[in-house]
Amino acid sequence: MKSNRVWLYDTTLRDGSQHEGIAFSAEDKIQIAQRLDAFGIDYIEGGWPGSNPKDLEFFRRAAQIKWKNAKISAFGSTCRVKSHVKQDANIQALLKAHTPVVTVFGKSWDLHVHEALRASLEENLQIIHDSVAYLKSKGKEVIYDAEHFFDGFAENPDYALETCVTAWDAGADVIVLCDTNGGALPFQIEEVIRRVREAFPDMPLGLHAHNDSDTAVSSTVAAVRLGVSHVQGTINGYGERCGNANLCTILPNLQLKMGCSFHRKLKLEKLTELSRTVSEIANLTHREEMPYVGNSAFAHKGGIHVSAIHRNRRTYEHIPPESVGNRQRVLVSDQAGQSNVLYKAREMGLDLDSRKEEVRKIVQELKKLEHLGYQFEGAEGSFEVLVRKTIGEVKPFFTMLSARVTVDRTENGFLYAEAVLKLEVNGKIEHTAAEGHGPVDALDKALRKALLPFYPSLKAVKLVDYKVRVLDSEKATAAEVRVFVESSDGRETWGTVGVSENIIEASWRALVDSISYKLMKTNQR
Amino acid sequence: MKSNRVWLYDTTLRDGSQHEGIAFSAEDKIQIAQRLDAFGIDYIEGGWPGSNPKDLEFFRRAAQIKWKNAKISAFGSTCRVKSHVKQDANIQALLKAHTPVVTVFGKSWDLHVHEALRASLEENLQIIHDSVAYLKSKGKEVIYDAEHFFDGFAENPDYALETCVTAWDAGADVIVLCDTNGGALPFQIEEVIRRVREAFPDMPLGLHAHNDSDTAVSSTVAAVRLGVSHVQGTINGYGERCGNANLCTILPNLQLKMGCSFHRKLKLEKLTELSRTVSEIANLTHREEMPYVGNSAFAHKGGIHVSAIHRNRRTYEHIPPESVGNRQRVLVSDQAGQSNVLYKAREMGLDLDSRKEEVRKIVQELKKLEHLGYQFEGAEGSFEVLVRKTIGEVKPFFTMLSARVTVDRTENGFLYAEAVLKLEVNGKIEHTAAEGHGPVDALDKALRKALLPFYPSLKAVKLVDYKVRVLDSEKATAAEVRVFVESSDGRETWGTVGVSENIIEASWRALVDSISYKLMKTNQR
Repeated sequence: MKSNRVWLYDTTLRDGSQHEGIAFSAEDKIQIAQRLDAFGIDYIEGGWPGSNPKDLEFFRRAAQIKWKNAKISAFGSTCRVKSHVKQDANIQALLKAHTPVVTVFGKSWDLHVHEALRASLEENLQIIHDSVAYLKSKGKEVIYDAEHFFDGFAENPDYALETCVTAWDAGADVIVLCDTNGGALPFQIEEVIRRVREAFPDMPLGLHAHNDSDTAVSSTVAAVRLGVSHVQGTINGYGERCGNANLCTILPNLQLKMGCSFHRKLKLEKLTELSRTVSEIANLTHREEMPYVGNSAFAHKGGIHVSAIHRNRRTYEHIPPESVGNRQRVLVSDQAGQSNVLYKAREMGLDLDSRKEEVRKIVQELKKLEHLGYQFEGAEGSFEVLVRKTIGEVKPFFTMLSARVTVDRTENGFLYAEAVLKLEVNGKIEHTAAEGHGPVDALDKALRKALLPFYPSLKAVKLVDYKVRVLDSEKATAAEVRVFVESSDGRETWGTVGVSENIIEASWRALVDSISYKLMKTNQR
Repeated sequence: MKSNRVWLYDTTLRDGSQHEGIAFSAEDKIQIAQRLDAFGIDYIEGGWPGSNPKDLEFFRRAAQIKWKNAKISAFGSTCRVKSHVKQDANIQALLKAHTPVVTVFGKSWDLHVHEALRASLEENLQIIHDSVAYLKSKGKEVIYDAEHFFDGFAENPDYALETCVTAWDAGADVIVLCDTNGGALPFQIEEVIRRVREAFPDMPLGLHAHNDSDTAVSSTVAAVRLGVSHVQGTINGYGERCGNANLCTILPNLQLKMGCSFHRKLKLEKLTELSRTVSEIANLTHREEMPYVGNSAFAHKGGIHVSAIHRNRRTYEHIPPESVGNRQRVLVSDQAGQSNVLYKAREMGLDLDSRKEEVRKIVQELKKLEHLGYQFEGAEGSFEVLVRKTIGEVKPFFTMLSARVTVDRTENGFLYAEAVLKLEVNGKIEHTAAEGHGPVDALDKALRKALLPFYPSLKAVKLVDYKVRVLDSEKATAAEVRVFVESSDGRETWGTVGVSENIIEASWRALVDSISYKLMKTNQR
């Protein structure tokens, strides 16, 4: 393997912002750029100053920041056909961004020159040359993105190469081969790169891959092995359609598995945090199954796996999770054997190693409940209540005597949901009622109202999430439903679960577990 | 490239069910298996009969189904060390699954033999041999999964190979090299496969890759190029940790880009539907940026892209979306909204081209509802009711005067759900009540009871599916919920939707749309 150093070029703020559902503000972009800079990225592509006002504001603010590691780059197209480069609005906008680096893209695919640009092949070479040479004359570091290079090369290799050589001759600092449509497979990308390097061994090359074939990361890794020294990608693989090459998986592959080095020391142990922060700012759900940085990336479910990782973590972990700032987790499930339960019990401060009979009972109970549709992943609160009840450590905090939930609707659409509840708490009868936004909300309010005088610690508890899953949904309205509830007391967050063919009952069970969990914890303190 | 035919082996029901958040019921598994069979998959791994009761039920039911294309496989480990294979509970459970195919996994990595199995290297070879030979003697097709093969080969290549040769000698029909921890990069996998093929050119090989390095799809594609003829993976890449190799992207890569052929004709144009259906059954949000099958996979946002694809679709699309059952989308713009409505209206036999004002009103109404959380994909019934109401073609079939839904629960857990309904139908008052398995079921029953005397065509209508999604679930029990209902009259199936912060009200709206749709169709006839 080549031991070339690799330049890292992030385009989360430009190509990543094309991701469906992303709309970064200028402030969002500054926040992300500062984190990329601290992490050790070499180049940050901030946006396309010629295309929208938000990007202009980003560049204005970026020019006032002292960056530790990164250079900020402005992105734009080559000048228009037959326009003089000095009068070209897009090229002038690039200069006005006041960045040390400018990235311009030009056409490599003859189809695009004809169909999109509506220019002759010769005119296209001219605008590539003029644009690059002009930006160089203004003292910029110029990165040239050869758009659609791989599609172009497949149909007209000589012309595709000529566009790159033109940009290189005009002074471009690096020629970035782009798989703009994301259609090339790794072996195709490798073959083309080999041929380009044979023809022009000294041309400094980069790769910009899209993930439409689900292979962008592999193509990038393969390109680096062939001597490509500039890698473009985005955090979390954000980008138009299926996204760009994902830096969150490329970087650990390069550093941990291929021994690559970079120009700055990467804070790889901050990778998970960086990835999550960008998900947060993008306001997209973090993909928990994402390699290296997802919450599931080092989560173990099967009982066999769990007992083996206890003996030696290498048996089921390809890297130490800490090296990318992530952590090992053990999940509870019906595949779980006794070792999962023991592991989980230890996490909650219970040593059950010598209490084999009780562990057997817990596993049995778990399997029975899971067969009914219960699921304890993400419902660790219910799991802990179950364990502590099974070993006799916790008694019920109240007894329900009766409950009624009513939803009324009148002709004009007025809706009213009410819950009436009779409980026995510490030998006293509590008979109360509450209304809510819906039947479950009313039930929740009535339950708290009844219990609060006895258990003041419940005051701090809030429901923060509520999810419903219909099991075996083909039974339609008579099907079982599973309800997940997430609760928080401001210090800790816990999940609980309930299953029934009646949604009110399923919700009730999850609510009761939530409250039992809190009271259990209060008593422990 | 080798033009070998490839066998397709799906393990969504076994390895896929290890995905965090998935808990398939036996019914779910049957549903998925039937779709895989219709799609053209060769092997369907149904589960691990030795590990849990749900899988036993699946195999019992699967044995009674006549499969068109696929063979069902039962999965399990080799027999335990020092146990006689005939008395081994796991091996016997495999036989009792009554499948034509059995897949057994054994250890290839010496570390695992010592640390997990706690056996000698010789003992491990013995149990591999005994397990495979015994299952062959029972007439099974035996697929041997060489667990951790790539890690094992890296540390002790001779021993790793010896485990495979042992299984092959004992009669295994194919040797599947597994990257169980998902840590190997494609170039490493390629190198090992080359060496295995050099040593044993006739050994039939398969690959089972995990996605921990974000490269499972590329590794699988590369393996097929090297002559591997058996590919394992899952729908949507579901699987433990970061998932398994994703068949939804591997299959179009192999067929559309590499010209591979399979043993059955794949219904590739049904791929998007298959992928979405499995997401639904798994109750996981469909990953819209997924290559080939995501809703964003062929979505165009940038203005440049949009004008270019109008001239020539190849300019920004790597394959025709229809070839995988997906579609091109152009994001944003009112114009797009109107042409969409016109297109949809034509599908339902309505020519609105000259009724611009009404189309504008429909678009406005749609936008308002979508802002509230409505979603009409999969709810075409509600969409049609909305369109025909807006253009004045359909009048309400009844008026609701009042409704009350009650759920009662007593100390011993008895549950009673009742709905009381007062409607005006054709100038007459209907005041009725019904009980059900839960509040929505009761409401559904009361509604039908009230309407049936007036509209006998409702007798044929059945609810076949009922789904609940919590929108903005962080508002917890006061959050909006969206209810989807699927109905059928035996000839046609239609979906309807309702949104409200009260689940009873949201269900009510979806139920009313369902009935309105049916009555609208009845009147048209």
